[in-house]
Formats: sequence, C-alpha cells, structure tokens
Amino acid sequence: MSTTTPVSSVVNVGADLLADAVANQAVDVARVDWRPPLSGTEADLAAVAADPLRRDANARAVAAYHGVTARLVDVVPASEALGLEPGQFLHAGPPITWDRASGPLRGALLGGAAFEGLVEDPEDAAALFESGSSVSLEPCHHRDTVGPMAGVVTPSMWMFVLEDLETGRRTHCSLNEGLGKVLRYGAYSPDVLERLRWMRDVLGPLLQGSVRAVRDSAGPVDVTGILTQMLQMGDEAHNRNRAGTLMMLRDLAPAMVLESERGGLSPNDVAEGLRFIGGNDHFFLNLAMPACKLALDAARGIEGSTMVVAMARNGTDFGIQTAGTGDEWFTGPAQLADGLFLGDYGPDDANPDIGDSAITETAGIGGFAMATAPAIVRLVGGTVPDALATTRRMHEIALAENPRWSVPVLDFQGTPTGIDVTRVCRTGILPQINTGMAGKVAGVGQVGAGLVTPPEEIFPKALARLAELARERAAVVAAH
Amino acid sequence: MSTTTPVSSVVNVGADLLADAVANQAVDVARVDWRPPLSGTEADLAAVAADPLRRDANARAVAAYHGVTARLVDVVPASEALGLEPGQFLHAGPPITWDRASGPLRGALLGGAAFEGLVEDPEDAAALFESGSSVSLEPCHHRDTVGPMAGVVTPSMWMFVLEDLETGRRTHCSLNEGLGKVLRYGAYSPDVLERLRWMRDVLGPLLQGSVRAVRDSAGPVDVTGILTQMLQMGDEAHNRNRAGTLMMLRDLAPAMVLESERGGLSPNDVAEGLRFIGGNDHFFLNLAMPACKLALDAARGIEGSTMVVAMARNGTDFGIQTAGTGDEWFTGPAQLADGLFLGDYGPDDANPDIGDSAITETAGIGGFAMATAPAIVRLVGGTVPDALATTRRMHEIALAENPRWSVPVLDFQGTPTGIDVTRVCRTGILPQINTGMAGKVAGVGQVGAGLVTPPEEIFPKALARLAELARERAAVVAAH
Repeated sequence: MSTTTPVSSVVNVGADLLADAVANQAVDVARVDWRPPLSGTEADLAAVAADPLRRDANARAVAAYHGVTARLVDVVPASEALGLEPGQFLHAGPPITWDRASGPLRGALLGGAAFEGLVEDPEDAAALFESGSSVSLEPCHHRDTVGPMAGVVTPSMWMFVLEDLETGRRTHCSLNEGLGKVLRYGAYSPDVLERLRWMRDVLGPLLQGSVRAVRDSAGPVDVTGILTQMLQMGDEAHNRNRAGTLMMLRDLAPAMVLESERGGLSPNDVAEGLRFIGGNDHFFLNLAMPACKLALDAARGIEGSTMVVAMARNGTDFGIQTAGTGDEWFTGPAQLADGLFLGDYGPDDANPDIGDSAITETAGIGGFAMATAPAIVRLVGGTVPDALATTRRMHEIALAENPRWSVPVLDFQGTPTGIDVTRVCRTGILPQINTGMAGKVAGVGQVGAGLVTPPEEIFPKALARLAELARERAAVVAAH
Repeated sequence: MSTTTPVSSVVNVGADLLADAVANQAVDVARVDWRPPLSGTEADLAAVAADPLRRDANARAVAAYHGVTARLVDVVPASEALGLEPGQFLHAGPPITWDRASGPLRGALLGGAAFEGLVEDPEDAAALFESGSSVSLEPCHHRDTVGPMAGVVTPSMWMFVLEDLETGRRTHCSLNEGLGKVLRYGAYSPDVLERLRWMRDVLGPLLQGSVRAVRDSAGPVDVTGILTQMLQMGDEAHNRNRAGTLMMLRDLAPAMVLESERGGLSPNDVAEGLRFIGGNDHFFLNLAMPACKLALDAARGIEGSTMVVAMARNGTDFGIQTAGTGDEWFTGPAQLADGLFLGDYGPDDANPDIGDSAITETAGIGGFAMATAPAIVRLVGGTVPDALATTRRMHEIALAENPRWSVPVLDFQGTPTGIDVTRVCRTGILPQINTGMAGKVAGVGQVGAGLVTPPEEIFPKALARLAELARERAAVVAAH
C-alpha cells in the first residue's frame, strides 16, 4: 500500500486522516493514487472518456440517488405487494435456473415450497424444480425487491414496503428471520418452517398494524434517516444493523402495544414480537437493503452514466447493472469470501458469495462504510486499520460523497457513493463487500462471515457495453 | 502536543495509533511523555512514591473495580430505597449549604420541595431552605447514590437500584427526565412538576413491574454489559447514551407489555412509557452513573491507594475522593465548561460545572472514552482528532485499561481506568470531562454542553493528604 521516500517525507495512500495528522507534525506528505488499468480496457476507457454525455449523466445519476428518502409505508404479503402467484419464487442475484443453482439457493427454494404447501417434505420439492412445470424462478430485482442471501420470496411471506413519497416508487424486502439455521442461508428444517409460519401468522400482522398506525399518525418512518443515525452508532448496515434494529423497534413498539388488539393479537403476541425483533441484530438489514435499492433505482436508465446501480449474487453468478445499460446484467463467477467461521466450519464448507445485500455496498455503506463500524472486524475478519483504509479506498472508485450518511471518525466525510465502472477499470480497485457465508450444502445454514469482492471481469464487460453505446452515439452524431 | 526533530523522525505524544502507522511506514518514531509536575508537589510525590503500600494498594483498587458487574435489580421510591424522610433532600457533588448553592441547585431544590408538597409555589420554598429548620441537604454520594446535574433526590422519586450480586452492595439513581427544561438543570415550571408526577404515578410503577419480572425470569439486566456494547455503538455513556437507552428499552419492553395489567396500568400507559424512554437519548445515563459508582466504591478504603474513586460537583465546588483517604472530599471551585450553546444562550448564561455525572469519567468512560464516540463533538464541541487524542491522553493518568470496555477504533484498547492522583500531579494532565451546562439562574434549565476539567488544585490537596498518611505510616514503622 505504501512506500517511503528519502528521510523527510512520508508517502501515503488512501488514509488522509493519517496524512493530515502527519502533515500537522510538519512531515512532508505526498499523496499518491496510481495503479495500472485493468488489462484490455484501455480502448473502452478512451471511448467512454470521450463520451460527451458521461459527465452530466453521472452528475444526474448521483443527484437522483441523493434525492431519494425511503419511508416505510406498509407491510403486506408478497402476493399482494408484488402480485406473486402460487408457484412463483423470487431469488437473489441475476437470473438463474435450478440446474445451475447453488446449495443454499436450492435449500431455500425447497423450504419455500414446503412453506407454501406445495409439498409436505421440503426435499420432495426438488422434483418440482427439476421439471419446472408448476414453478418458476425470477430475480428479486426484476420485481422491485431485494432479498438477503438466497433471497427466496414466496407469496405468503410478508414484505416491507418502502416508498419515495416524491415519485411513488416502491421497493420491497421480506422480514428478517434472524441468524443461524434460517431459510435465507439455505436451511429448511422443521424449526425453520415453524418460524416462518409464526412470522406469517403473528409478526406480519403485528408489524402491519404498527407500521400503518405510525404512517397515519406521525408519518411513515424515515428509513434513510435511521441509516444516518446508524452510521454514527457503529453499524455499517450490512453485517451490523444493531442500532438500526433498535431504532426501528423504538419507533414501532408503542404502536404495536396499541394496535395489537385491533389485529386480534394478545399481549403475549406483542411481547413475543418485541423479543423477536430485539433479539435479532440483523432485523434492520431487510429495511436497509430496499432503502438502498430505492435510492439507486432512481439512477437507472440514464444514458451515458457509468454508475453501478445494482450488485447482486445468486450463489453461482455475481452480476452488476449500470445506470447507462438498462436491465442488462454483466456477470461472472461468485467468489468465496475470506473471513471467520462459526463453530467447526471452515473454508471448505462455504458457498460462493450469495445475496442481494451487496445493494448496501452499491449504495456506499456496508463494506464501503467499514470505517464507521470498526467492531465489524470481529465478525468479518481483518483489522481496524484495514477497516479505516477500506472506506478511504472505496472513495477512489466512487463518483461522490453522501451528504446524509457521514462517518464521524473520518471527520464526518460522507460515505463513498456511486461506484463508477470507469474508475474501477482505471484503478483496478474492486468494490469491497462484507457478507455472511452460507454453507454450500442445502440445509446447512450460516457457516461464517467475511470479506469478498466481485469477480474482476464484470467491470470490463460493463465498460465494453458502455463503450459500445458511446461509440454508437458518436457514429450517429458523425453521420448527421 | 508535539515537536519535530531533524528530517527522518517524528516525535509523537499520546496518539500511538498514529505512531504505529507512521512506524509501519518506516519513519523513526520517538514516543515522549514529559511535562513538569504540578508546582509544589515534588515533596509529596516523593513521599507517596516511597510508600511501600502504594503499588499493591493500587493493584488491589483496580482489581476491586474490575471485579464488579452492576445489575439492575429493582426500581423503588427513594423513601424505600434510601430511607429518605420528608424534608430530606439529596444533591450532587460534595456537601454544600443553601447560602452557597448555585442557581440550578437552588432551582431543583425549590421544584423538589413543591413536588413533595412542602409548598404550593416552588418559590415559596426558598424561605424553608434559608431557615433550614424543616429541611436538610445531603450529598447523594453519602447515601450510595449519584445524581446528574443538580442531582436533587426527594422521597417520592423512583430510584434505579443496581447491585453487585457478589457482595450485595447497591447503588442508586433517579429516573432521567429528558433534556431541556427539567428539574436536574434547575427548572421548576409547572410542566417540569407535571412530568415528575407522571414519572411517579406511571413510569415508576411500569419500570418496577418490568425490572422485577426480568430479574425473576431471565435474571437482572447486566448494566456493565450494556456499557460494553454502547462503547462499540458511538456512546461514551455521559453525553451520548442513545444506544444504551435503546438496549435497555429492548430488554424491558416485553415485560412492560406483560406486567402492566398487574400494575393497574393501561396499554396507553405502556405506550406512553415506551415513547418517553425511546424519545430520551439520555435515559440510560441514570443507569451508567450508578454502575460506575458501584464499581468505584469497591475500591474505597484501600490504605495507600492513590486512585480517585469519585469526582463530583455541586455547581459551586468540585470535589474528589480517593481510595486511600476515606470519605474526605478535596475541593476547589467548579469551572465553566467550554462548548456549544442551545439557541441564543451564551457563556454568560452558564453555571459552573455541576453534577455527579463525572463518576463516568472517574470510571474511565464519558470524556475518557471520547475516541469511541466521535459524533459527540457535534454536541460538546472540539474536533474528531481531539476526541481521539483525549482518550490517548487520559491513558497517561490512568492506572489500567478496562478489559470489558474497549474502544474499537483504538484497536480495541480498554478504556483508561483508575485516575491516579500521583500521575495527575506528575504530568499536569487533568481529567477531561464532557458535560451538560445548566443555566446559572434558577429555573432556566439547560443552556448547552461542553468540555471541562476539575480545578487543578484539588489533586495536590489530595496528594498532600496521601503523603501525610504515608509519612505517618513510615514514622510508625521507624519507631518500631
């Protein structure tokens, strides 16, 4: 990361806080930022650099992203929120078929089929998915939804509904089940299904009543604003969501107490709901993710923009979409995370990277905001200086800083926002994601957490398409 | 703070993270730690240094402090918890009489008298306190209690009861009223008294029921453990208690729902209680403070120990007590804080430093842990690098690091624990306190928040007494 120059100066890469501190002590500091571009990208980088649309398109994409405030307006079943029909299954990441699906995605689909009553024994559902006659798979992202890990959504699951009140645009996410043996990590044992049924029968109605009551009295909860607070409270909103969960609990608890009777729920149900949410530090992840998607979707479809609007993994493929390339996915093989393992699990037990949760990094938090959550290194590995340096490094590939999401320890610098495909290709710096790790065998559940990056080749692929579109536009201009 | 030496080296004081980072970049680093002792302390420093008891006494004091886990075992009125009789008033800081009491302490006493029904109009109580015939004042610390700001406790106020289950020792603190116009800042308007009555009639019974239910089922809430978590969530537990408040709310909310009926409270009462606690980021301060006192009290009465066991202010005087000097207070004039003001208030409106809340700094958090709560600078002033440097500096006057309370951004270093009178005198580094500021006129309430230190002279005073005791012991030994 750094080298020294003779005697009286320090060469510093990335960590400006250090650079400033050293400078204050009267040592000369040279800030350097140079790496070779990803190989083979030179011509495409030149084409995109020459695109007259690019600068303004990226500014518009960033502004559109910054303009969104995500509010929690409702909690409703997926059948109602998304029009999901029996036999339709959503999953994380880019499109995939059963034959290429990884263990944890398969496990979650089996469990989801049993939860929906399509089969009695989850394992009997494998035949359904193999034949494909009565079931279908579709990415969450294609239905204004994001799903953590396997990201399987079925019609009976309750969904958080987030809305940008300015435009009426909405995004969705299921309710978080907790950690360990849970459906999203590919587990489908009887206790997993029992928890899902309790969430369907008790937690969903309890949340619906309270979210609607808060919406109709104080106004819908500002999820973007809670994220602002979380980032000052040691959460990076991907693998630490403890403060966010507690603030959501604080905001909904009084209405839970007051609305439960109307919903036919008992004080015991309310107490159990409060305990479930309070006991699950990851509960807020399923609100952070659709808030990030809602903001990023505002930047979709801006011709010439090189900003990444989605990063998502299905356990087999890692895909990205950009503002300037419509709904096209640029994919490559999902990588194995490097991190810490639960119990006796080790690297051989882990599935490659999975889940739509990298939407948090796409929005500039999660791995991009590790500096504000140094305690995260105890979960995902690495050191505290690494965490600080990571956020600094992510600024090198970001178009902007988020004025609403600041990092106190970096002197309130805004989080790095808007991954720029051209900067990734030019610097070779890949987005840093921190993530849970699912067991690679269906049914196992979580085995650890760690750090991972996208496969390098997807950025040159996206760049090539952006360059192609730029050249087409240039040709049209030249022809006139 | 620092100087430079020729070309190839950096001189670094206090901030080891920087020193390490620079060292990693192959620049020579000299760590220096030298300031002149406080003037006139040389002979006493020598006498204490020669005391054969000192090293072991300080080790025992630190171990006693570290051995305490504070648990929330009950919530009861002060009449019951402390045997407080009508007309008896507790206050923050060292002992003081009405004639020397500052505006905010007087205001809180007037309001407290009206709250207890001794007078109808608070201002009529001034005559009572002037005559002193039917009322009495006593420091909270003399009754196993701590009180933030004015710290006024009256018999009808509900008290948190914290216990060290190993020894049965207990400490107490009233319930936090919120910010702004509140009794502890010296306000006594009708809304202040109305809030106190609601706390007496609704909040107290609600908390009692839930704290007892949690105690008797899961076991009493571990307040020391919540402090561990808070310090990883941007709280320093003096002027930021947001995460702590939310965790306490999480731990008590289910039992509030289940126990309210037994206590004759309605769902509306429960919802209002949840809203009150959730809406008051400082609610947990009144749990952090008695947890700190419970731990520090374990170190009291250890002959030869130079560790500070209490720092407290009554708005006129700042007093400290040490482990080796029994119940004696060493006092000097309370200082004005330097900080940020609310609305149109300015430095001329502020009362000198007041409250027992400096028990948090005495225990190594609050101002001592500012590195872990950099967002605090937006409330109390200063810069983020100052916050980091402050914690580093406090280690210079501390006997130990707290293994249970660590600061992630300083690579999980334990908080600086056990202020050593000799180190303060030897280095001239004064304990850093961050604090709320009360208006100097009775009735005003809060006017700001800022940074303050004790008056320098109280440490040489304490040192002189410690030296006197050491010389007495040496004389006894010599005589034998």
